[in-house]
Amino acid sequence: MQPEVDLVISGKYLVPGNGADTVFNTAVAVQGERIYEIGEDLERKYPEAQHLSSPYGLIMPGLVNAHSHAAMSCFRGLADDLPLMVWLQEHIFPVEAQLNSEMVFISTLLSTCEMIKSGTTTFNDMYLFAEDVARAVAQSGMRAWLGEVLYDFPSPNYGELENGFAYTENLFAAYADNPLIEITVNPHAVYTCSPELLQQTKRIAEQHDALYHIHLAENQDEVATCTERYGCSPVQHLHNLGVLDSQVVAAHCVMVNDQAIALLADNQVRVVHCPESNMKLASGTAPIPVMLEKGITVGLGTDGSASNNDVDMFGEMNTAAKIHKAVQLDPTAMNAAAVLHAATMGGAQLLGAGAEIGSLEVGKKADIIVLDMNQPHLTPLYNPLSHLVYAARGGDVVHSVINGKVVMENRKITTLDEEEIVAEMSSLGRHIRQIR
Amino acid sequence: MQPEVDLVISGKYLVPGNGADTVFNTAVAVQGERIYEIGEDLERKYPEAQHLSSPYGLIMPGLVNAHSHAAMSCFRGLADDLPLMVWLQEHIFPVEAQLNSEMVFISTLLSTCEMIKSGTTTFNDMYLFAEDVARAVAQSGMRAWLGEVLYDFPSPNYGELENGFAYTENLFAAYADNPLIEITVNPHAVYTCSPELLQQTKRIAEQHDALYHIHLAENQDEVATCTERYGCSPVQHLHNLGVLDSQVVAAHCVMVNDQAIALLADNQVRVVHCPESNMKLASGTAPIPVMLEKGITVGLGTDGSASNNDVDMFGEMNTAAKIHKAVQLDPTAMNAAAVLHAATMGGAQLLGAGAEIGSLEVGKKADIIVLDMNQPHLTPLYNPLSHLVYAARGGDVVHSVINGKVVMENRKITTLDEEEIVAEMSSLGRHIRQIR
Repeated sequence: MQPEVDLVISGKYLVPGNGADTVFNTAVAVQGERIYEIGEDLERKYPEAQHLSSPYGLIMPGLVNAHSHAAMSCFRGLADDLPLMVWLQEHIFPVEAQLNSEMVFISTLLSTCEMIKSGTTTFNDMYLFAEDVARAVAQSGMRAWLGEVLYDFPSPNYGELENGFAYTENLFAAYADNPLIEITVNPHAVYTCSPELLQQTKRIAEQHDALYHIHLAENQDEVATCTERYGCSPVQHLHNLGVLDSQVVAAHCVMVNDQAIALLADNQVRVVHCPESNMKLASGTAPIPVMLEKGITVGLGTDGSASNNDVDMFGEMNTAAKIHKAVQLDPTAMNAAAVLHAATMGGAQLLGAGAEIGSLEVGKKADIIVLDMNQPHLTPLYNPLSHLVYAARGGDVVHSVINGKVVMENRKITTLDEEEIVAEMSSLGRHIRQIR
Repeated sequence: MQPEVDLVISGKYLVPGNGADTVFNTAVAVQGERIYEIGEDLERKYPEAQHLSSPYGLIMPGLVNAHSHAAMSCFRGLADDLPLMVWLQEHIFPVEAQLNSEMVFISTLLSTCEMIKSGTTTFNDMYLFAEDVARAVAQSGMRAWLGEVLYDFPSPNYGELENGFAYTENLFAAYADNPLIEITVNPHAVYTCSPELLQQTKRIAEQHDALYHIHLAENQDEVATCTERYGCSPVQHLHNLGVLDSQVVAAHCVMVNDQAIALLADNQVRVVHCPESNMKLASGTAPIPVMLEKGITVGLGTDGSASNNDVDMFGEMNTAAKIHKAVQLDPTAMNAAAVLHAATMGGAQLLGAGAEIGSLEVGKKADIIVLDMNQPHLTPLYNPLSHLVYAARGGDVVHSVINGKVVMENRKITTLDEEEIVAEMSSLGRHIRQIR
């Protein structure tokens, strides 16, 4: 009997994302949540399935945004070009103190619209009111790893830290069987978490076999503070506390010397590169090419919209491919293939999901995007991979499929009412302007 | 009698681009080539005029791309991530040697499509076969400064250098009265032009009161070569030859020390910042904030698509606003206002056209673009100026007016057959792949 194929996606190019060559004039058949077949003429073979055909389409794995604070879209452009402490203390913190469930829900929904429309299918989020983040993710149809940020100070969400642990346990219980949402444990950073908190959160992560997602060695100030308090670098500090292992997802790692890089590599820590945020906040440039040479698993992330100011992974790829060339004065540093890998398989591996997502292969989850390549800025086309990194933009993505479900068709999101969310977010922006 | 207004453009925001504040719910009335009135309710006042209304539109001056090689779109993505000399000698030069009029014409047309669709209304171009560049510009309806590149070697266009001078004279004669095209004199660089050629081209420029457009101090190799041949830096070399003055438009200026910057400032040389090309070719980062402090007029440019790989000035603004923060570790370096100025008025002043274009003011030429701000990635909107630099993309531009004429309406170019040009360019790409 003919197996039931639900969806056939066909196009002119297919970039599998696993290092294999681009395939021409091919298609992907999806059955349920998974890729069932890749080959030619699948529309004819499965005439009953839904057909997403793009004569000039490029089919590729959905992008993985490996470090985000989706709800920070509500702060986009609120304050820019300021010293970090002025930005945080006079603009972000006063509003963050007044955040509530509904603000986080709407702001996360807005970011899921933006991410879907720019080719991201999976993101790894750290923020307050994580239940509301998860509620928005579930509505959007996206795939996400997420958790509640924990630190030594009272939280506008859970109040005292003890409640934060209970809140996190509830998250694990509520999403234990969710096919699209995985819960992580999120100590904020070494300068906002006591050594005890860093260790206690690690124990919680271990109990749930969960990722330990933390900001690490983001800038000079963090290194200076850590050195002053603990007499060592942030990476060494985590190692001394016994928490540095292969379940640690470390965002930024900008200010890491050879010794710190060796510690990260030896302990199989996974690193998220966020070049645009690191540039905008004047943190510097993470030595990612060196980390890749040492075999470290690297994903790419946008960080929050307040410090980027978008969650567009195509823009992030473009910057990642250029910044290291400028810093090292070497045009071969971090080539297009390495950048595309970080944005797809690298991110998937970092999340421990390399066997399920990050590339287009039979049996893997169907997280697939299609770009329209028939446009002036993508013409001529000598090398699809180069165009994806150096010329394509988020707006070129026309279709998006997540876990086998079409979440965007011809740039219309099917899971969310984009117009209503944009209107609600505008209204929330007016409110935030008043409470500042 | 009611004056005849041809066009009224209305929107929610108007960023005048002259440093004045954003105006809300306003409109621009255009009469012939010029802005006739800026104010409220102009649609009602001029009911007979064509109306371009955007309820969520942001109206702003068209962007000025101050350094480009539009025809290099035919090399986009042909070869990336390679050492400069391998890239040039094994990939670009062999194809450039086989360029002809028609290839340059089609490739320039393609770039004008791309520029119009990403908000550029004026560009300053240097390339071979400048007559064909001009022919494409005229067809597109764009405004351009352009010239034939001159160097010591035989050219695939004019052959021996003497013919290059004649070719340039013919350009001046042919475009003497064109309202949209200005001819410039384009010695390629200090390492490809003899001292005599650098001086002779300066005399030609002076005879025509024209700009002297040159690549200057682009990278370490150029400085090393110049020092070896002439015992001084590229900037000092031009000064020694007596050609360094306020008619010089110097692209790049990456490798300039304090002494070179002082020479540029003292001689009122205008500088084009091309951050993305400088990053991709591993040239480094031009010390633009220092040059701005010294009062140097700075424009922003994309360079050619072979080293970028696009001609999108919104992407260029985003990068320009971030790269100096990362290099200087200072989040206040090169703020959004300074970047937007470089992409509009700075570019206009650099071309000697600050009184005519670069801002929206009554009496100036009507070079106007409108962006659709009702999108997830531009929501909420606290500060329009910040969004233009940090969040907007070329694809957000919906309408474009150049010299009073609507060249794009609702993203459809009115002057060119975009689909046909993309098809011709694809075909040219297949040809170039064969002759490599």
